[in-house]
Amino acid sequence: MNRPDPPDLPDPPDLPDPAWLPPEAFRPLGTRRTLIQGTGPLVETVRGEVTGACERFGGEAVRDGRHDLLLELTAGDDLGLGAEGFAFAREDGTTTVTASGQHGLLYGLFHVVRLGGEAFTGSRPREVHRPATKSRMLDHWDNVAVHPVMGQVERGYAGGSLFWRDGRARGETERVRAYGRLLAACGINAVCVNNVNVHATEARLLTERIGEVAAIADALRPYGIRTHLSVTFAAPVVLGGLPTADPLDEAVRDWWARAVRGVYAAIPDFGGLVVKADSEGQPGPFTYGRSHADGANLLAAALAPHGGTVHWRAFVYDHRQDWRDRTTDRARAAYDHFAPLDGEFAPNAVLQVKHGPMDFQVREPVSPVLGALPRTRLAVEVQATQEYTGQQRHVCWLGPMWSEVLRFRAEGEGGATVGESADDLVAVSNVGDDPFWTGHPLAQANLYTFGRLAWRPDADPHAVLDEWIGLTFPSAPERLTAGLRAVLRGSWRTYEKYTAPLGVGFMVQPGHHYGPGVDGYEYSPWGTYHFADRDGVGVDRSAATGTGYAAQYAKAWAEVYESAGTCPDELLLFFHHVPYGHVLSSGKTVIQHIYDTHFEGVEEAEEARRVWAGLADLVDPARHARVAERYEEQVRGAREWRDQVNAYFLRKSGIPDERGRTVY
Amino acid sequence: MNRPDPPDLPDPPDLPDPAWLPPEAFRPLGTRRTLIQGTGPLVETVRGEVTGACERFGGEAVRDGRHDLLLELTAGDDLGLGAEGFAFAREDGTTTVTASGQHGLLYGLFHVVRLGGEAFTGSRPREVHRPATKSRMLDHWDNVAVHPVMGQVERGYAGGSLFWRDGRARGETERVRAYGRLLAACGINAVCVNNVNVHATEARLLTERIGEVAAIADALRPYGIRTHLSVTFAAPVVLGGLPTADPLDEAVRDWWARAVRGVYAAIPDFGGLVVKADSEGQPGPFTYGRSHADGANLLAAALAPHGGTVHWRAFVYDHRQDWRDRTTDRARAAYDHFAPLDGEFAPNAVLQVKHGPMDFQVREPVSPVLGALPRTRLAVEVQATQEYTGQQRHVCWLGPMWSEVLRFRAEGEGGATVGESADDLVAVSNVGDDPFWTGHPLAQANLYTFGRLAWRPDADPHAVLDEWIGLTFPSAPERLTAGLRAVLRGSWRTYEKYTAPLGVGFMVQPGHHYGPGVDGYEYSPWGTYHFADRDGVGVDRSAATGTGYAAQYAKAWAEVYESAGTCPDELLLFFHHVPYGHVLSSGKTVIQHIYDTHFEGVEEAEEARRVWAGLADLVDPARHARVAERYEEQVRGAREWRDQVNAYFLRKSGIPDERGRTVY
Repeated sequence: MNRPDPPDLPDPPDLPDPAWLPPEAFRPLGTRRTLIQGTGPLVETVRGEVTGACERFGGEAVRDGRHDLLLELTAGDDLGLGAEGFAFAREDGTTTVTASGQHGLLYGLFHVVRLGGEAFTGSRPREVHRPATKSRMLDHWDNVAVHPVMGQVERGYAGGSLFWRDGRARGETERVRAYGRLLAACGINAVCVNNVNVHATEARLLTERIGEVAAIADALRPYGIRTHLSVTFAAPVVLGGLPTADPLDEAVRDWWARAVRGVYAAIPDFGGLVVKADSEGQPGPFTYGRSHADGANLLAAALAPHGGTVHWRAFVYDHRQDWRDRTTDRARAAYDHFAPLDGEFAPNAVLQVKHGPMDFQVREPVSPVLGALPRTRLAVEVQATQEYTGQQRHVCWLGPMWSEVLRFRAEGEGGATVGESADDLVAVSNVGDDPFWTGHPLAQANLYTFGRLAWRPDADPHAVLDEWIGLTFPSAPERLTAGLRAVLRGSWRTYEKYTAPLGVGFMVQPGHHYGPGVDGYEYSPWGTYHFADRDGVGVDRSAATGTGYAAQYAKAWAEVYESAGTCPDELLLFFHHVPYGHVLSSGKTVIQHIYDTHFEGVEEAEEARRVWAGLADLVDPARHARVAERYEEQVRGAREWRDQVNAYFLRKSGIPDERGRTVY
Repeated sequence: MNRPDPPDLPDPPDLPDPAWLPPEAFRPLGTRRTLIQGTGPLVETVRGEVTGACERFGGEAVRDGRHDLLLELTAGDDLGLGAEGFAFAREDGTTTVTASGQHGLLYGLFHVVRLGGEAFTGSRPREVHRPATKSRMLDHWDNVAVHPVMGQVERGYAGGSLFWRDGRARGETERVRAYGRLLAACGINAVCVNNVNVHATEARLLTERIGEVAAIADALRPYGIRTHLSVTFAAPVVLGGLPTADPLDEAVRDWWARAVRGVYAAIPDFGGLVVKADSEGQPGPFTYGRSHADGANLLAAALAPHGGTVHWRAFVYDHRQDWRDRTTDRARAAYDHFAPLDGEFAPNAVLQVKHGPMDFQVREPVSPVLGALPRTRLAVEVQATQEYTGQQRHVCWLGPMWSEVLRFRAEGEGGATVGESADDLVAVSNVGDDPFWTGHPLAQANLYTFGRLAWRPDADPHAVLDEWIGLTFPSAPERLTAGLRAVLRGSWRTYEKYTAPLGVGFMVQPGHHYGPGVDGYEYSPWGTYHFADRDGVGVDRSAATGTGYAAQYAKAWAEVYESAGTCPDELLLFFHHVPYGHVLSSGKTVIQHIYDTHFEGVEEAEEARRVWAGLADLVDPARHARVAERYEEQVRGAREWRDQVNAYFLRKSGIPDERGRTVY
């Protein structure tokens, strides 16, 4: 008997799609007269953009005299704009973008593009725009050499890597530059070019292969993007031939200092290092009896003289857990490991925390780590690549989910939001060498939304989505705009409905994580269980009777989560094991909720497919066909989810659907 | 999140183990005077064996005069021995082996070796030994090129292939010859050198790469082994460039005739072709609206002029089944496809039928196909490679299972046994380039037992096991013999106990099939379900209320299987869906049987490990260590099976173990 076929791979690469920067988006700018004041390489990028737009649309980049738009780089920073901020104003028929740093000028330019014709109408008092976060980074889980199990891009659903192919750098500067341009246009300023799981080939990027990283950095730099590198904590042993990688060993510290000097010699504006340590088999400081602060500070010390940062991932847990042991709770792990270390991290060490305590499920509570280390720089990590959210074969626009996380107040009412307290925002990239960049053309919206929310975490995600629609489909008629809104806005909730219910998570096929497998991880060593039996389902994470995870939150949330009566419905099974007859605050029983949402989810996916089909006359045929084809798979997949999940719970609970629909 | 690690690969190859032909086994022969009469290449093989033994132990291969042993090839065949039979007798201090064919003389020699000292004591009236089957074949599921998912050997657990490595023939004639010698010594006379799933590289063995097959045939021929080849039904298209592979197309028939002529030009004693058609994605006659008899007869016609045979596999079923559809039953498929074709197959076409209706589970009923085609030549296929029986990391001696199949009387009392009505016996090989040939040293017993049961299907498997012990461990003290019996005899029942209960099957991890996955195939397209719910478990295959599979048997068995009251316990869940409280003929409820057998199975595995540990002083250290190491894994695995299966059924049924043992 053979294995089932793995999911199909995306089509081979082609000329990339313009995404949210189609030439047409530059028409309002390109028909105007623009004066650019200032010097520097990013100012040249701005000048190039303006000149290109004017050549296409008949406007002019003027050296002086009358102009419709002034892009000015000021000497001082009276407005407190910082390096990346800009001010935007319009009066007396002239629009002005003011920046004190070149990056700010570039972002100001793209702000004008985003506004379109509006940038040149009426009057506008001066608005100041500054990013809320310092680093807005994409982590590429790209392997240099094809990994025997994970392939060229780990959890990649958009073809090959932009950077690497079969062990070598691709050297496709133009495509990387075009990528950087797209990123700058949504506010992203950092890219980590290789997988956090650093295998043998990739380890050498730090040393003898740093030139290949430098070439990528050269292509990204004109758009204000700094390049970062994932490294293995064992590098001093693996690359340096030292007998240890102990962070307190002098020779180890010297080795890292030398290695990092080498990196900066090749890439003077290098951003820093990303490390996954003591996690899923990666080496780390635990080997030497040292703390993760020791580990992070080792690299921070090497980076500090050069202005670099280490992003140290908090994704540390026991991935060899015994499913029989109900006292160990993977959800607790990051907090248990890192909360006691608050205050011990160097100023240029950033703790990179997944937004939820588990692993990018369609619904998780906000990680308690995000409220637990007030004296530590934190990066919030989200996953644009849709590992658990449909793998870019299903539409699942994650804006609302990310926005919920960023607006979460860890201390309760009156406290700061996660978005306010985060220093950096990081997304695992969903991009590859696919002609549409992201496999599913509509998944571009996730990348764009991430960038914009990273810049401004309190932004309304629906407004961001409208921006994306406006840029990607310039002059879209109302029917197209409405159709795109209809298929995207609710798509995360739809995906949630037809997959794992009420925050329970992980009912996926093991390994590739595509498609339903209700018991797929139930008896595994990964710490991801639902404990469904004939009476009920869910994980008791209360302090009173469960694993105590709920008590990792500040009091306001700990109380809410502690009781099944106050816990929000959508997280109920994450925090509590309840009988199938438990009545939700919605008024439905858990079992009926499972049936209802699974039927609704499929209906919504079918409706989205129908809406998309009706847009055929308004969308470029290739793009329309690609999306239509993926909707077939989404609807097929949604039905499979519905039927497997419903059948599983009917067989366990014995409680029929009260509406008498078919459950197998 | 990463995938779990795949099971470890076996150690790298080394000098192969002598298995059941250690030099010491030749001592009784090698100390005697032997006269060999006859000529021919296999007689030379016999002479070489005798000479080698005498050189080592001081006897003599004499040309005439006094002798202890006469090995004579007669001109006629007065005794009706056929090509492979021999007569054995001893009187007046002389042992005589008489054969009318060279193959018979070779088998007679190994009979003498098997008897050891007994062959030379007392008197023995003439016994005639003839194989009950014509072809006793090993199918190697070896790939020439490493398959991206299945590797070098599909379902191989003994290292690489003996024949192929990384796309090339290994050309290791000596090792292949040594393999042939082992096979001859247990009666095997045919080897198919490549996987029944014929991929692109392997397809070419039939034509431009036939020389590589011929080199293997040359190495096997001295031990009386004919070489067979798996081919793709699409060969005329794939290799010949024809527009069709329609079996009734003249050009296709001509193409096959030419191709087969080419094979025989390279290998004059070529055995024939093996075909997996219309099965799990392989091409076949259905594409052209033709029957499987049309397909098989096409190849039979090409082979007939040369005396070759086509082995046509009956493993045809829908592997894209919808799990929601309870009317389709994979178990029915082979009978439904092939029973109506009885009488239509050419005389040199052999229908190769898996012993059970599904796929080599630890317990299945005997395939109803084996009683349904009286006018068709049948080969019974068993699986020596332990795909579903512990993958040569667990001890699972399959002799008793195979013997039960071979002694099954398809027509009921008074009818012929499967062993009597089968023309050929085929096993999927469990051999690779592992130094112990089979990964687990004790898995050698499966290979030996297969050969001996293929020769004589009514043999007592325990007597065969004793032969294997006697040959493999010459002069074993009673403690060793007793220990080996203790760990092997019951090992199949032990494995059955701790894995899938009562014939239900397929509770394995998808893909690699190692370790428990109770719902692993429950919602898959593979047609392998158990339908467990909170009330009961099993598949209703009765005629009255189920899929009707039970009615595919002759009346005697159809009646037995039809009712849960008469169905044998060990097959109950294969034939019936019953409540957990259903009382077995053993007097236990189904649920208590599940708990009890799973606890017992682990205890038995632990006890076997203990027994083996106690044999350390009597077994070669390398072999002892290899087995001891695998027992650690077996016990770990058995506990995992016990706990997952018990937990699954406790959670579903809610019925506690009446003995209060720990179920998680």
